[in-house]
Amino acid sequence: MAIEVFKTVTESIDGLQVSCRARDFEFILDEPKSLGGTDIGMNPVEALLGSLGACKVIAAKSFARLHKINLKSVRIELEGELDTDGFMGKNPNAKIGFSKIVSNFYIEADNTEEEIKAYVAFINATCPVADTIKNAPVMESNLFL
Amino acid sequence: MAIEVFKTVTESIDGLQVSCRARDFEFILDEPKSLGGTDIGMNPVEALLGSLGACKVIAAKSFARLHKINLKSVRIELEGELDTDGFMGKNPNAKIGFSKIVSNFYIEADNTEEEIKAYVAFINATCPVADTIKNAPVMESNLFL
Repeated sequence: MAIEVFKTVTESIDGLQVSCRARDFEFILDEPKSLGGTDIGMNPVEALLGSLGACKVIAAKSFARLHKINLKSVRIELEGELDTDGFMGKNPNAKIGFSKIVSNFYIEADNTEEEIKAYVAFINATCPVADTIKNAPVMESNLFL
Repeated sequence: MAIEVFKTVTESIDGLQVSCRARDFEFILDEPKSLGGTDIGMNPVEALLGSLGACKVIAAKSFARLHKINLKSVRIELEGELDTDGFMGKNPNAKIGFSKIVSNFYIEADNTEEEIKAYVAFINATCPVADTIKNAPVMESNLFL
Protein backbone atom coordinates (compact mmCIF):
# COMPACT_ATOMS: atom_id res chain seq x y z
CA MET A 1 0.00 0.00 0.00
CA ALA A 2 1.30 3.43 -0.95
CA ILE A 3 -1.63 5.62 0.03
CA GLU A 4 -1.13 9.26 -0.93
CA VAL A 5 -3.54 11.98 0.12
CA PHE A 6 -4.20 14.64 -2.53
CA LYS A 7 -5.67 17.93 -1.32
CA THR A 8 -7.54 20.72 -3.07
CA VAL A 9 -9.27 23.76 -1.59
CA THR A 10 -12.24 25.33 -3.35
CA GLU A 11 -13.63 28.66 -2.24
CA SER A 12 -16.35 31.02 -3.39
CA ILE A 13 -14.86 34.29 -4.64
CA ASP A 14 -17.73 36.33 -6.01
CA GLY A 15 -21.01 35.30 -7.59
CA LEU A 16 -20.50 31.76 -8.88
CA GLN A 17 -16.73 32.18 -9.40
CA VAL A 18 -14.75 29.55 -7.50
CA SER A 19 -11.04 29.43 -6.78
CA CYS A 20 -9.60 25.88 -6.96
CA ARG A 21 -6.18 25.54 -5.34
CA ALA A 22 -3.82 22.60 -4.98
CA ARG A 23 -0.26 23.11 -3.72
CA ASP A 24 0.98 26.33 -5.44
CA PHE A 25 -1.50 26.11 -8.32
CA GLU A 26 -4.89 27.67 -8.92
CA PHE A 27 -7.55 27.85 -11.57
CA ILE A 28 -10.87 29.67 -11.50
CA LEU A 29 -14.14 28.00 -12.47
CA ASP A 30 -17.40 29.83 -13.15
CA GLU A 31 -20.68 29.29 -14.98
CA PRO A 32 -21.88 30.81 -18.25
CA LYS A 33 -24.29 33.73 -17.95
CA SER A 34 -27.18 31.42 -18.93
CA LEU A 35 -26.57 29.51 -15.66
CA GLY A 36 -26.15 32.58 -13.49
CA GLY A 37 -22.39 33.06 -13.72
CA THR A 38 -20.07 35.69 -15.20
CA ASP A 39 -18.37 33.30 -17.64
CA ILE A 40 -14.73 33.93 -16.73
CA GLY A 41 -13.76 30.25 -16.75
CA MET A 42 -14.98 26.82 -17.71
CA ASN A 43 -17.55 25.25 -15.42
CA PRO A 44 -17.08 22.29 -13.08
CA VAL A 45 -18.48 19.63 -15.41
CA GLU A 46 -16.17 20.84 -18.21
CA ALA A 47 -13.26 20.78 -15.73
CA LEU A 48 -14.23 17.23 -14.75
CA LEU A 49 -13.96 16.23 -18.42
CA GLY A 50 -10.62 18.08 -18.53
CA SER A 51 -9.24 16.17 -15.57
CA LEU A 52 -10.41 12.88 -17.12
CA GLY A 53 -8.88 13.61 -20.51
CA ALA A 54 -5.65 14.94 -19.04
CA CYS A 55 -5.31 11.85 -16.87
CA LYS A 56 -5.65 9.64 -19.96
CA VAL A 57 -3.18 11.79 -21.95
CA ILE A 58 -0.64 11.55 -19.11
CA ALA A 59 -1.15 7.77 -18.88
CA ALA A 60 -0.69 7.55 -22.66
CA LYS A 61 2.59 9.46 -22.49
CA SER A 62 3.91 7.79 -19.32
CA PHE A 63 3.50 4.17 -20.36
CA ALA A 64 4.22 4.42 -24.09
CA ARG A 65 7.83 3.21 -23.95
CA LEU A 66 6.96 0.29 -21.65
CA HIS A 67 4.24 -0.80 -24.10
CA LYS A 68 6.50 -0.27 -27.14
CA ILE A 69 4.22 2.46 -28.51
CA ASN A 70 6.12 5.01 -30.59
CA LEU A 71 3.73 7.84 -29.73
CA LYS A 72 3.92 10.98 -31.86
CA SER A 73 0.84 12.83 -30.64
CA VAL A 74 -2.23 12.31 -28.51
CA ARG A 75 -5.39 14.39 -28.26
CA ILE A 76 -8.64 13.37 -26.61
CA GLU A 77 -11.95 15.06 -27.31
CA LEU A 78 -14.43 14.43 -24.54
CA GLU A 79 -18.19 14.78 -24.67
CA GLY A 80 -20.41 14.46 -21.63
CA GLU A 81 -24.21 14.25 -21.79
CA LEU A 82 -26.07 15.83 -18.91
CA ASP A 83 -29.79 16.40 -18.40
CA THR A 84 -29.87 19.85 -16.81
CA ASP A 85 -33.44 19.22 -15.62
CA GLY A 86 -31.87 17.02 -12.92
CA PHE A 87 -29.89 19.52 -10.85
CA MET A 88 -32.36 22.29 -11.70
CA GLY A 89 -34.99 20.28 -9.81
CA LYS A 90 -37.33 20.18 -12.80
CA ASN A 91 -37.43 16.39 -13.09
CA PRO A 92 -36.92 14.13 -10.04
CA ASN A 93 -36.24 11.17 -12.35
CA ALA A 94 -33.42 12.84 -14.29
CA LYS A 95 -29.86 11.82 -13.44
CA ILE A 96 -28.12 14.73 -11.70
CA GLY A 97 -24.69 14.24 -13.29
CA PHE A 98 -23.35 12.93 -16.56
CA SER A 99 -25.31 10.00 -17.99
CA LYS A 100 -22.66 9.31 -20.64
CA ILE A 101 -19.05 10.33 -21.25
CA VAL A 102 -17.41 9.68 -24.62
CA SER A 103 -13.61 9.83 -25.04
CA ASN A 104 -12.56 10.24 -28.67
CA PHE A 105 -8.85 9.43 -28.96
CA TYR A 106 -6.78 10.94 -31.79
CA ILE A 107 -3.45 9.17 -31.73
CA GLU A 108 -0.45 9.26 -34.05
CA ALA A 109 2.00 6.43 -33.47
CA ASP A 110 4.31 4.18 -35.47
CA ASN A 111 2.36 1.07 -34.52
CA THR A 112 -0.33 -1.16 -35.96
CA GLU A 113 -3.99 -0.31 -35.40
CA GLU A 114 -4.30 -3.43 -33.26
CA GLU A 115 -1.41 -2.35 -31.03
CA ILE A 116 -2.86 1.16 -30.61
CA LYS A 117 -6.34 -0.23 -29.83
CA ALA A 118 -4.86 -2.44 -27.12
CA TYR A 119 -2.93 0.53 -25.77
CA VAL A 120 -6.09 2.69 -25.58
CA ALA A 121 -7.79 -0.13 -23.64
CA PHE A 122 -4.83 -0.17 -21.25
CA ILE A 123 -5.01 3.63 -20.83
CA ASN A 124 -8.74 3.54 -20.08
CA ALA A 125 -8.14 0.86 -17.45
CA THR A 126 -5.10 2.53 -15.86
CA CYS A 127 -6.33 6.13 -15.60
CA PRO A 128 -6.99 7.07 -11.94
CA VAL A 129 -9.67 9.66 -12.81
CA ALA A 130 -11.53 7.17 -15.03
CA ASP A 131 -11.37 4.55 -12.27
CA THR A 132 -12.72 7.07 -9.74
CA ILE A 133 -15.73 7.63 -11.99
CA LYS A 134 -16.26 3.96 -12.90
CA ASN A 135 -15.72 2.58 -9.40
CA ALA A 136 -17.09 5.04 -6.86
CA PRO A 137 -14.87 5.79 -3.89
CA VAL A 138 -16.25 6.18 -0.37
CA MET A 139 -17.63 9.74 -0.23
CA GLU A 140 -17.50 11.41 3.19
CA SER A 141 -18.72 14.87 4.12
CA ASN A 142 -18.02 16.90 7.25
CA LEU A 143 -19.37 20.29 8.28
CA PHE A 144 -17.39 22.88 10.25
CA LEU A 145 -19.27 25.96 11.43
CA MET B 1 -35.34 15.87 -20.93
CA ALA B 2 -32.95 18.78 -21.44
CA ILE B 3 -29.81 16.93 -22.51
CA GLU B 4 -26.83 19.25 -22.95
CA VAL B 5 -23.52 18.05 -24.33
CA PHE B 6 -20.45 19.51 -22.65
CA LYS B 7 -17.17 19.28 -24.57
CA THR B 8 -13.54 19.50 -23.51
CA VAL B 9 -10.40 18.86 -25.55
CA THR B 10 -7.22 17.63 -23.88
CA GLU B 11 -3.95 17.53 -25.75
CA SER B 12 -0.37 16.63 -24.92
CA ILE B 13 1.88 19.70 -25.14
CA ASP B 14 5.32 18.62 -24.00
CA GLY B 15 6.41 15.96 -21.55
CA LEU B 16 3.44 15.29 -19.30
CA GLN B 17 1.97 18.80 -19.68
CA VAL B 18 -1.60 18.71 -20.95
CA SER B 19 -3.73 21.54 -22.29
CA CYS B 20 -7.40 21.27 -21.23
CA ARG B 21 -9.72 23.48 -23.28
CA ALA B 22 -13.47 24.07 -23.10
CA ARG B 23 -15.10 26.86 -25.13
CA ASP B 24 -12.69 29.85 -24.82
CA PHE B 25 -11.04 28.62 -21.63
CA GLU B 26 -7.91 26.64 -20.93
CA PHE B 27 -5.89 25.36 -18.03
CA ILE B 28 -2.69 23.33 -18.05
CA LEU B 29 -2.24 20.20 -15.97
CA ASP B 30 1.07 18.48 -15.29
CA GLU B 31 2.63 16.10 -12.81
CA PRO B 32 5.17 16.83 -10.08
CA LYS B 33 8.78 15.97 -10.84
CA SER B 34 8.49 12.87 -8.62
CA LEU B 35 5.95 11.47 -11.11
CA GLY B 36 7.89 12.43 -14.22
CA GLY B 37 6.43 15.88 -14.87
CA THR B 38 7.76 19.43 -14.85
CA ASP B 39 5.36 20.65 -12.12
CA ILE B 40 3.87 23.68 -13.87
CA GLY B 41 0.28 22.90 -12.83
CA MET B 42 -1.80 20.73 -10.58
CA ASN B 43 -2.25 17.14 -11.66
CA PRO B 44 -5.44 15.48 -12.93
CA VAL B 45 -6.51 13.94 -9.62
CA GLU B 46 -6.11 17.32 -7.89
CA ALA B 47 -8.11 18.92 -10.73
CA LEU B 48 -10.80 16.25 -10.26
CA LEU B 49 -11.07 17.27 -6.60
CA GLY B 50 -11.17 20.90 -7.75
CA SER B 51 -14.06 20.26 -10.13
CA LEU B 52 -15.92 18.38 -7.39
CA GLY B 53 -15.43 21.10 -4.78
CA ALA B 54 -16.24 23.92 -7.22
CA CYS B 55 -19.43 22.14 -8.26
CA LYS B 56 -20.51 21.93 -4.61
CA VAL B 57 -19.57 25.58 -3.97
CA ILE B 58 -21.61 26.67 -7.00
CA ALA B 59 -24.57 24.56 -5.87
CA ALA B 60 -24.26 26.11 -2.40
CA LYS B 61 -24.34 29.62 -3.85
CA SER B 62 -27.04 28.95 -6.47
CA PHE B 63 -29.67 27.40 -4.24
CA ALA B 64 -29.10 29.37 -1.00
CA ARG B 65 -31.96 31.82 -1.44
CA LEU B 66 -34.43 29.07 -2.43
CA HIS B 67 -33.49 27.13 0.72
CA LYS B 68 -33.60 30.25 2.92
CA ILE B 69 -29.88 29.99 3.73
CA ASN B 70 -28.29 33.37 4.41
CA LEU B 71 -24.89 32.29 3.14
CA LYS B 72 -21.92 34.50 4.05
CA SER B 73 -19.04 32.30 2.91
CA VAL B 74 -18.34 28.78 1.72
CA ARG B 75 -15.04 26.95 1.43
CA ILE B 76 -14.57 23.24 0.87
CA GLU B 77 -11.34 21.41 1.61
CA LEU B 78 -11.15 18.13 -0.26
CA GLU B 79 -8.92 15.17 0.47
CA GLY B 80 -8.64 12.16 -1.79
CA GLU B 81 -6.89 8.93 -0.84
CA LEU B 82 -5.17 7.08 -3.67
CA ASP B 83 -2.91 4.03 -3.60
CA THR B 84 -0.27 4.94 -6.19
CA ASP B 85 0.78 1.26 -6.40
CA GLY B 86 -2.39 0.75 -8.46
CA PHE B 87 -1.70 2.80 -11.58
CA MET B 88 2.06 2.19 -11.24
CA GLY B 89 1.32 -1.50 -11.79
CA LYS B 90 3.02 -2.51 -8.55
CA ASN B 91 -0.06 -4.13 -7.01
CA PRO B 92 -2.79 -5.69 -9.17
CA ASN B 93 -5.19 -5.63 -6.19
CA ALA B 94 -4.83 -1.91 -5.50
CA LYS B 95 -7.67 0.36 -6.64
CA ILE B 96 -6.44 2.51 -9.54
CA GLY B 97 -8.28 5.70 -8.59
CA PHE B 98 -9.43 7.35 -5.38
CA SER B 99 -10.62 4.92 -2.71
CA LYS B 100 -12.02 7.71 -0.55
CA ILE B 101 -12.88 11.39 -1.05
CA VAL B 102 -13.61 13.62 1.96
CA SER B 103 -15.33 17.01 1.56
CA ASN B 104 -14.81 19.27 4.57
CA PHE B 105 -17.32 22.15 4.39
CA TYR B 106 -16.53 25.46 6.09
CA ILE B 107 -19.73 27.49 5.97
CA GLU B 108 -20.73 30.80 7.49
CA ALA B 109 -24.46 31.47 7.42
CA ASP B 110 -27.13 33.10 9.58
CA ASN B 111 -28.94 29.83 10.09
CA THR B 112 -29.17 27.08 12.68
CA GLU B 113 -26.70 24.18 12.61
CA GLU B 114 -29.58 21.87 11.71
CA GLU B 115 -30.58 24.01 8.74
CA ILE B 116 -26.99 24.17 7.48
CA LYS B 117 -26.54 20.40 7.89
CA ALA B 118 -29.67 19.78 5.84
CA TYR B 119 -28.40 22.23 3.23
CA VAL B 120 -25.05 20.44 2.96
CA ALA B 121 -26.92 17.15 2.44
CA PHE B 122 -28.92 18.83 -0.34
CA ILE B 123 -25.71 20.18 -1.95
CA ASN B 124 -24.04 16.75 -1.88
CA ALA B 125 -27.13 15.22 -3.53
CA THR B 126 -27.56 17.97 -6.16
CA CYS B 127 -23.96 18.40 -7.35
CA PRO B 128 -23.54 17.03 -10.90
CA VAL B 129 -19.85 16.19 -10.43
CA ALA B 130 -20.56 14.29 -7.19
CA ASP B 131 -23.37 12.37 -8.91
CA THR B 132 -21.07 11.50 -11.82
CA ILE B 133 -18.64 9.95 -9.33
CA LYS B 134 -21.28 8.23 -7.18
CA ASN B 135 -23.40 6.93 -10.07
CA ALA B 136 -21.12 6.00 -12.94
CA PRO B 137 -22.19 7.20 -16.39
CA VAL B 138 -21.86 5.03 -19.47
CA MET B 139 -18.20 5.38 -20.54
CA GLU B 140 -17.54 5.06 -24.26
CA SER B 141 -14.19 5.22 -26.03
CA ASN B 142 -13.44 5.64 -29.74
CA LEU B 143 -10.13 5.62 -31.55
CA PHE B 144 -9.34 7.73 -34.61
CA LEU B 145 -6.03 7.08 -36.37
